[in-house]
Amino acid sequence: MKYLAIADAEAFISKALQSQKVPAADAGTIANLMVQSDLVGADGHGIFRLPAYLKRIQAGGVNLKPNIHIEREQGATALINGDNALGHLVMDKAVQLAIEKVKQHSVCWIGSHYGNHSGAASVYVRKIAEQGYIGIYMAVGNANHMAPWGGIDLLLSTNPIAIAVPAGDGPMVLLDIATTVAAYGKVKVAAQKGETIPDDWMIDRQGKPITDPKKSAEGSLLPIGGYKGYGLAVMIGLLAGALNNAAVGKGTIDFNAHHDLLTNTGQTIIAVDPSAFGDQEAFIGRVIALVEDLKNSATLPGVKAVRVPGEGSAKTMAERNRMGIPVSPELLNALNTCAQECGITALDL
Amino acid sequence: MKYLAIADAEAFISKALQSQKVPAADAGTIANLMVQSDLVGADGHGIFRLPAYLKRIQAGGVNLKPNIHIEREQGATALINGDNALGHLVMDKAVQLAIEKVKQHSVCWIGSHYGNHSGAASVYVRKIAEQGYIGIYMAVGNANHMAPWGGIDLLLSTNPIAIAVPAGDGPMVLLDIATTVAAYGKVKVAAQKGETIPDDWMIDRQGKPITDPKKSAEGSLLPIGGYKGYGLAVMIGLLAGALNNAAVGKGTIDFNAHHDLLTNTGQTIIAVDPSAFGDQEAFIGRVIALVEDLKNSATLPGVKAVRVPGEGSAKTMAERNRMGIPVSPELLNALNTCAQECGITALDL
Repeated sequence: MKYLAIADAEAFISKALQSQKVPAADAGTIANLMVQSDLVGADGHGIFRLPAYLKRIQAGGVNLKPNIHIEREQGATALINGDNALGHLVMDKAVQLAIEKVKQHSVCWIGSHYGNHSGAASVYVRKIAEQGYIGIYMAVGNANHMAPWGGIDLLLSTNPIAIAVPAGDGPMVLLDIATTVAAYGKVKVAAQKGETIPDDWMIDRQGKPITDPKKSAEGSLLPIGGYKGYGLAVMIGLLAGALNNAAVGKGTIDFNAHHDLLTNTGQTIIAVDPSAFGDQEAFIGRVIALVEDLKNSATLPGVKAVRVPGEGSAKTMAERNRMGIPVSPELLNALNTCAQECGITALDL
Repeated sequence: MKYLAIADAEAFISKALQSQKVPAADAGTIANLMVQSDLVGADGHGIFRLPAYLKRIQAGGVNLKPNIHIEREQGATALINGDNALGHLVMDKAVQLAIEKVKQHSVCWIGSHYGNHSGAASVYVRKIAEQGYIGIYMAVGNANHMAPWGGIDLLLSTNPIAIAVPAGDGPMVLLDIATTVAAYGKVKVAAQKGETIPDDWMIDRQGKPITDPKKSAEGSLLPIGGYKGYGLAVMIGLLAGALNNAAVGKGTIDFNAHHDLLTNTGQTIIAVDPSAFGDQEAFIGRVIALVEDLKNSATLPGVKAVRVPGEGSAKTMAERNRMGIPVSPELLNALNTCAQECGITALDL
């Protein structure tokens, strides 16, 4: 495996975006945020997405001179209109506003619409927790690959939720999950590699498990916990989609199939100030105590150690900050095809 | 099956509580809220719990003259100290405060500690959604029946989450789930009936499925979606427990084993005003549109119709308002044993 240094990845992305007329400052912000996804090991959400983002830009599917603005602001809430900007810019603004408003109100709820795909959810809640606040993120995914429980029609996305809780000097406790057993990206990767998929990932229109990922097109991803995960996907769809007047259900645009259409992606960020509920240090102490208790649990046969949410990504982050981002031959090839199209220097790893 | 009229159930509970020196007004509030759990079909959370509540009162495990008060209030947040009151009273206060504060700030986050079991989570988010707001509830459960993912030690509870979204004249969209595949109560019911349980509910200390519920004592409930549900349980534990300086992890008291000990139950209520994000009617329209799309989905073979979260409980509510609460012979017997102990008139169904 070859490795791409973090700074080089950022520079490459930024140059590629600028070659497509993304203003330099915006390109820098996006490049930085994209690489944050790679840093924590969310490989499907970082530099891997550059070719798709460039395709969307070239198809006119995003607004390169957006007026990202606060459309409504009331009490401890706000609604951001992303003006169809590249999604990272919208979430960057949402996080900034959340940190501003949580200082003022101790909690805030920021909705956004007319956004786009913005990488791993964890990137944004991490920024909030780095400031000592609890961060929650919910989004409507950009393609419907799930049917309602008991149904066949693909009306729901994997609607992810991420939650980050600061833990002082320890790695923050951070969960970033889709409400489906597996992300659709994993199914596609298995199809590429000619592998089978576990029988609890997808069902076909008869309700039978799909294990050949090449047959996934008509199938439905399965929600976690059956009707429970279905319910969570619906509620996140309402809180991040319907509430923000963003796309959800039938209105969702498949961003892989339609590079030119407005996705009207809906996202929600909540920030909470733990110090509103008591001494911040004492809170951090309680968080660390729970983390330690979980980690010290006896393990099942064959399990080396219990993990706490966020521990794995913190390790990956430390490794990749040192080693860089692992780049497969396929990814390198895809990125250098972009380089050629954009007229920028190819990566030489 | 025999049926107990709603008003009779309330009167019975209220009298039983008053016989144990619960002040009349509090007894009335608790009785009303307990019956709300029965009304929506949460049979393990309503009148079924009366014997256990009475046992806790008799053991001195709850404070019958509590000073439920706002311990901290900052911006759009507050922390309620339940002073070890019967849990329904604490949540009643939390909901009232949430509705007050959401009017002022458009969103609010109310934590509570020193509460107790308070019935079905759905009862409280329903009250918020009935006022046109979105309600979210999270709690640390009152007994640890789940190990961390890959672990053996029972350090986590089923930590439930409930979310209610108003839907105008239609039934509100309402999800009320534990983060485990099955509630521990279901395992106990199966044990009583001598039935087996599905192999994805629990594992033993070797990681093997438990299908004989009589062997459940040492086993761990399984989280929904494996590490995902484990992660959700941890995050809810932090948001409703650690944040509120309430019990979580090792600090959790098993309320079925220790009727005299302070549970320090932690709960969190969030309310959001949809009208802060746009026209309320238009929002309701989008909620109903998603609901209709889901319900109109083609179904899998053998499935009559797709259900939307909250639809089933709305039907049950309508039925039970008319018919009353179904009471099994075992439950009737348990309630009439209480009646005898309390010196009140037995139920005659």
